[in-house]
Amino acid sequence: MTIKPLLIKFKQNFRWFRVPLKQYKPDGTTFKDITRQTILDEDLPGLNFSPRYFEIKAGGYSSLEKHQHVHVVFVLRGKGRVLLGAEVKEVAPFDCLYIPPDTWHQFQPLGKKTLGLLCFVDKDRDRPQLPSADDLEELRQNEAVEKFIKA
Amino acid sequence: MTIKPLLIKFKQNFRWFRVPLKQYKPDGTTFKDITRQTILDEDLPGLNFSPRYFEIKAGGYSSLEKHQHVHVVFVLRGKGRVLLGAEVKEVAPFDCLYIPPDTWHQFQPLGKKTLGLLCFVDKDRDRPQLPSADDLEELRQNEAVEKFIKA
Repeated sequence: MTIKPLLIKFKQNFRWFRVPLKQYKPDGTTFKDITRQTILDEDLPGLNFSPRYFEIKAGGYSSLEKHQHVHVVFVLRGKGRVLLGAEVKEVAPFDCLYIPPDTWHQFQPLGKKTLGLLCFVDKDRDRPQLPSADDLEELRQNEAVEKFIKA
Repeated sequence: MTIKPLLIKFKQNFRWFRVPLKQYKPDGTTFKDITRQTILDEDLPGLNFSPRYFEIKAGGYSSLEKHQHVHVVFVLRGKGRVLLGAEVKEVAPFDCLYIPPDTWHQFQPLGKKTLGLLCFVDKDRDRPQLPSADDLEELRQNEAVEKFIKA
């Protein structure tokens, strides 16, 4: 059987043809002003990993979370800051991030422009874990992290 | 044990800091004017897939090949044409390609600019297979494909 290849054309303004704009997550408690595009259907034959494109508007942020699966992230537009374990780093287009298992992370745009992130994950992956009160206390012991995080 | 996160900074001209520019493949018989950057070490903990960045100069081409593992490709720069199964398609920046198992493919730049491709594969993957004389005869039954392929 031949499996059909796919060409997902980029349209403009960081939208792709036939890729719907979705909520970042079903709940809305731990993030702000962020959208998701699942560029490829995760159930495509032979596909063990999945590219998703996230956009965070100025003033917004992704969930502060960790999990066992790895993130590989490429910045596509805008500038941002990211909590990466115990440090806050600045990122710009085409920077690549490896976020290992069990590593706290959160993304925020820097300045007035939207931050756009291409994020790859395993198809089979664990659910993200949010910080407990104890986790937050530990994270906040670092002043730069304390100033940065939204939770 | 804490595993160190990585931020691979984009430098300029589609090079990343501390990422060496390599040959596309060890042999040189089936491709032309193409380079590879392995942006993340494939042996990083928990990493089951790998991002590689390829550049093909005007007049160059990648190997005409197929394999059981999937490619997920994002175009980062330039324009190109790609053999995708039995068809030749045009691609431009931020287009995304899903190349399923057992699907012939080959990339070529279109025009005078370099074509840059971010290509994700499984860490554990089979070796690419080159076309036999019979495969080439079958591929060349389509006139557009015949005109396009270099093998």
